Amino acid sequence: MAAMPVATLPVALDAMGGDRAPRETVAGAVAAVRDHGIPVLLVGRVGELEPLVRALGGPLPGLALLDAPETVAMEEHAVAAVRRKRRASIVVACQEVREGRAAAVVSAGNSGAVVAAAIFVLGRRSGIERPGIAIPFPTSDGTPCYLIDAGAVVDPRPPVLLGYAELVTDYLRQVRGLARPRIGLLNNGEEPGKGNALARESFALLSAAQDVNFIGNVEANVLALGAADAVVTDGFSGNVALKSAEGAAALFQSVLRRELTRSWHDKLVAALLRPAFRRVARSLDYREYGGAPLLGVRGTVIIAHGRSDAHAITRAIVAAQRSVVPIEVTGSKKEPVDDVPPAPS
Amino acid sequence: MAAMPVATLPVALDAMGGDRAPRETVAGAVAAVRDHGIPVLLVGRVGELEPLVRALGGPLPGLALLDAPETVAMEEHAVAAVRRKRRASIVVACQEVREGRAAAVVSAGNSGAVVAAAIFVLGRRSGIERPGIAIPFPTSDGTPCYLIDAGAVVDPRPPVLLGYAELVTDYLRQVRGLARPRIGLLNNGEEPGKGNALARESFALLSAAQDVNFIGNVEANVLALGAADAVVTDGFSGNVALKSAEGAAALFQSVLRRELTRSWHDKLVAALLRPAFRRVARSLDYREYGGAPLLGVRGTVIIAHGRSDAHAITRAIVAAQRSVVPIEVTGSKKEPVDDVPPAPS
Repeated sequence: MAAMPVATLPVALDAMGGDRAPRETVAGAVAAVRDHGIPVLLVGRVGELEPLVRALGGPLPGLALLDAPETVAMEEHAVAAVRRKRRASIVVACQEVREGRAAAVVSAGNSGAVVAAAIFVLGRRSGIERPGIAIPFPTSDGTPCYLIDAGAVVDPRPPVLLGYAELVTDYLRQVRGLARPRIGLLNNGEEPGKGNALARESFALLSAAQDVNFIGNVEANVLALGAADAVVTDGFSGNVALKSAEGAAALFQSVLRRELTRSWHDKLVAALLRPAFRRVARSLDYREYGGAPLLGVRGTVIIAHGRSDAHAITRAIVAAQRSVVPIEVTGSKKEPVDDVPPAPS
Repeated sequence: MAAMPVATLPVALDAMGGDRAPRETVAGAVAAVRDHGIPVLLVGRVGELEPLVRALGGPLPGLALLDAPETVAMEEHAVAAVRRKRRASIVVACQEVREGRAAAVVSAGNSGAVVAAAIFVLGRRSGIERPGIAIPFPTSDGTPCYLIDAGAVVDPRPPVLLGYAELVTDYLRQVRGLARPRIGLLNNGEEPGKGNALARESFALLSAAQDVNFIGNVEANVLALGAADAVVTDGFSGNVALKSAEGAAALFQSVLRRELTRSWHDKLVAALLRPAFRRVARSLDYREYGGAPLLGVRGTVIIAHGRSDAHAITRAIVAAQRSVVPIEVTGSKKEPVDDVPPAPS
């Protein structure tokens, strides 16, 4: 058992969201409270959550439960589901932030539903047309490169990409402490003039932007190589970049495993390298990066991977808490969440 | 020294194309002739090529030279350069195919220039609006998954994607011997209705196509995981998928190298696994797949990676020869190349 939680607002966790909820979400929350001293509000079906908490040695100081009887399934139409299900766990979790009773929301559920709930309940930041998901890409030095948008808006207009560049600049300044984050535009070549219509028009807007340190067009390999701090694109291309990298990493791992287990000699020798292989897996593990902030809404929202296990949930809760504090301390463009009027209930 | 070349048309190699031309292109050609018995026509500045051939023990039976004094640089505007430079190596190489004096073209040069030269000199196949580059993606079982288009057309209309599906089906049937190649549509989710406007409209066209075994939407991780034989998309997203996978693979390799050389113990143990690591590198090496066919033009054109070394060039020449033979034997929709009228000179 580590430090007790400090007296601060809890992180609201959508305990029903994700392929492995609620077992792994509850376990991740318990670890966040116990090992990191972060208070967590578990939002979901209390009847299901309570026995899981008890099985892990709860109740715990710093871990609270809030009943939300409805859920949004992965295959549901996100916007319709969120409009209809006012008592869904993700909607209730966002309401807690809006009411000033929670500092941030974490969810591994249907990401469309997270985006919709955040927009409906928390609202957009002023001047922001479309919020975007900023996925942290692993790089070799352990500093992630943020890709925005990774799936919230598949057919944006060029000003949306400019908005992403401003949002992620703001985020990297305030949360990561970078003075002049380098922002690239995802393209199919580095030369100006490259790209589809969206990329060409966005290039012009970004080049003229005063408050963005625009480094020009970048190809998708830059994400892993770390030549930019963030890369902006539409949600379609962002998803392609993300999934293609995931596929390549999985392929590399499976071929490595196959070739290192072909003979008893290799198997035995490879066993001696287990700690090194574990370090490799860890430095490339998306879970270590703690999920993707949804930028452009009035409140801190972290979208965790749908397959998140307890460890990934804990890391996302830690990331959520870290993302919250500097934003409120340094005074961003974001309105204080408790100034936002409550939604009709 | 292996078998002598059989009496067949040579593969025309753009000897000046690629970051490492002409040294590596010449070496690759010499190996193709010597080790694979494939006749090669080296097209480029003969004054530069001849000493390189001689340094490798030439002249050789099966290796011919054809002078083409001009070149297209990587940064040149491809279409303009090809229109202006009638004696550029890539243009002359395509002319040899058109005139029936060569079986196929291989180039590691400016891929825009290869596409432009192929369209201008060889022409499009009938019914094909836009040719596409079909990049073979490595998968774990060694059978590539073809991604088309990987950069020829960044803003296609939906019928272009349908054309790609038909072209790559044809190619996989005739060159790879697959009876019903599985064709996926690159998208940001698997459910019908997902995607940007292009993807949604293309989904409808592909679903209605009689001669395409359409397996629906696929996310980009499918490329490495091998659940489709080919995936169609626009050239912008195709480039993103390709470069993102390249970046992820490079990252994995660099982290692996770093972690396996942290201590003397690990370094020594890892040295015992060198053959296994070499097998891993080889099964993921783009060079083994022999370059990307340009589909939809009247003739066989293989685009090799810009960074191709001699080995990659040899593999591309082998792939070119293999791509040619079955197409002519089985009688595809492609017109025989010598029926095409010569271009005005």
